Amino acid sequence: MKVYGHPMSTCTRKVLTTLAEKGKEAEFVLVDLTKGEQKSPAHLARQPFGVVPAFEADDGTLLYESRAIIRYLDRVLPGTSLTPSQPKPYGFMEQFIGVEQSYFSPAAMKIIMVELFHRGEGSEAAARVAEGRQGVEKVFSVVEPVLGRQQFLAGDAFSLADVTWMPYLGYLGATSAKDLIGKYPNVSAWWNRISARPSWKKVAG
Amino acid sequence: MKVYGHPMSTCTRKVLTTLAEKGKEAEFVLVDLTKGEQKSPAHLARQPFGVVPAFEADDGTLLYESRAIIRYLDRVLPGTSLTPSQPKPYGFMEQFIGVEQSYFSPAAMKIIMVELFHRGEGSEAAARVAEGRQGVEKVFSVVEPVLGRQQFLAGDAFSLADVTWMPYLGYLGATSAKDLIGKYPNVSAWWNRISARPSWKKVAG
Ligand SMILES: N[C@@H](CCC(=O)N[C@@H](CS)C(=O)NCC(=O)O)C(=O)O
Ligand SMILES: N[C@@H](CCC(=O)N[C@@H](CS)C(=O)NCC(=O)O)C(=O)O
Repeated sequence: MKVYGHPMSTCTRKVLTTLAEKGKEAEFVLVDLTKGEQKSPAHLARQPFGVVPAFEADDGTLLYESRAIIRYLDRVLPGTSLTPSQPKPYGFMEQFIGVEQSYFSPAAMKIIMVELFHRGEGSEAAARVAEGRQGVEKVFSVVEPVLGRQQFLAGDAFSLADVTWMPYLGYLGATSAKDLIGKYPNVSAWWNRISARPSWKKVAG
Repeated sequence: MKVYGHPMSTCTRKVLTTLAEKGKEAEFVLVDLTKGEQKSPAHLARQPFGVVPAFEADDGTLLYESRAIIRYLDRVLPGTSLTPSQPKPYGFMEQFIGVEQSYFSPAAMKIIMVELFHRGEGSEAAARVAEGRQGVEKVFSVVEPVLGRQQFLAGDAFSLADVTWMPYLGYLGATSAKDLIGKYPNVSAWWNRISARPSWKKVAG
């Protein structure tokens, strides 16, 4: 198995965290985003939209889209399942992967791109950070009561939904929006719980 | 079961198409987008981000996010599965749901919002349509060879991936970007194939 990606990329990290949770290593092939390698013909042959990650299975199957790769890995690899077997937590897992993709990561990335990756400056960048904060707060206010009732996004077991949120939470903690995590006690306790997992320490360490 | 949504909404249509494919009826509760009812307290209690659809299962479970609801329905309802059982087509199904959400629907909606829902005008709207066309062409050029090898996005069986693309293809056919479908023969043959299904005729009819 090969993972084509970049160790700092949030979407690559979802794949690496899933592999670590399953106790599986894959060959890591660096696609150097700082050199624009994601737009090279070799990478476009694997990921036609010119972004990372891409994945190659042992049988040569090529897959892209981070959330597709992690669902595929959870299905084919042995080890603890990261997908609830019961319909209700399964539905919640999918709902919160959807919330990550539709609302959480777009908002978080507004802050992360400006503050950690230095995209944009001045009042335009400040406005984007403010917008991002508003979006992140909305999302946290939605998951706060959920995480009061249960340990993880899908229910009482860690799932792919938690995996998809981790890379953004990890970076947010290094931005001016760090205070927002602290403001929501259940979100904060959940983040402490999931970021202490060996898989995350391995990926973000 | 109840579906809260609007019959013209693309995301609501994914849920209705899935139900029709499974041969199941749900009570349809109109959330009138033309009256802003998606922002009413009653709807926000079901869908905290103020959009449609939302879903209520027979046991009272509330779910939102269209692509989560359809995966849940496919899992809990009897009838032909819309999710491939083999890993490879399963991975492709998830990849192409990802492509829909990340690239296809954002591009298609730029055209659809301007031309069918009259959002924006003048050169700014024209620029958005042009951008949308470029995005749609990119996506069609990616799926064209795939649909030359197999009948459907995931493989040789109709799946949830096809379901998620249908609402946007349906509307695109009523815009100036109709020609783009015709330009890609495999995309065009696939669209003829899937739009002839009774489920789609029921939902879009
Ligand atoms: N929908 C894609 C998004 C991937 C994505 O945006 N990757 C970023 C890194 S996290 C990237 O490659 N950015 C470089 C670029 O846009 O050129 C996925 O989930 O895999
Ligand atoms: N990520 C959501 C998106 C839902 C969505 O954008 N719904 C649109 C209709 S297709 C809506 O309710 N728009 C009204 C609004 O934005 O106020 C999902 O997949 O369910």
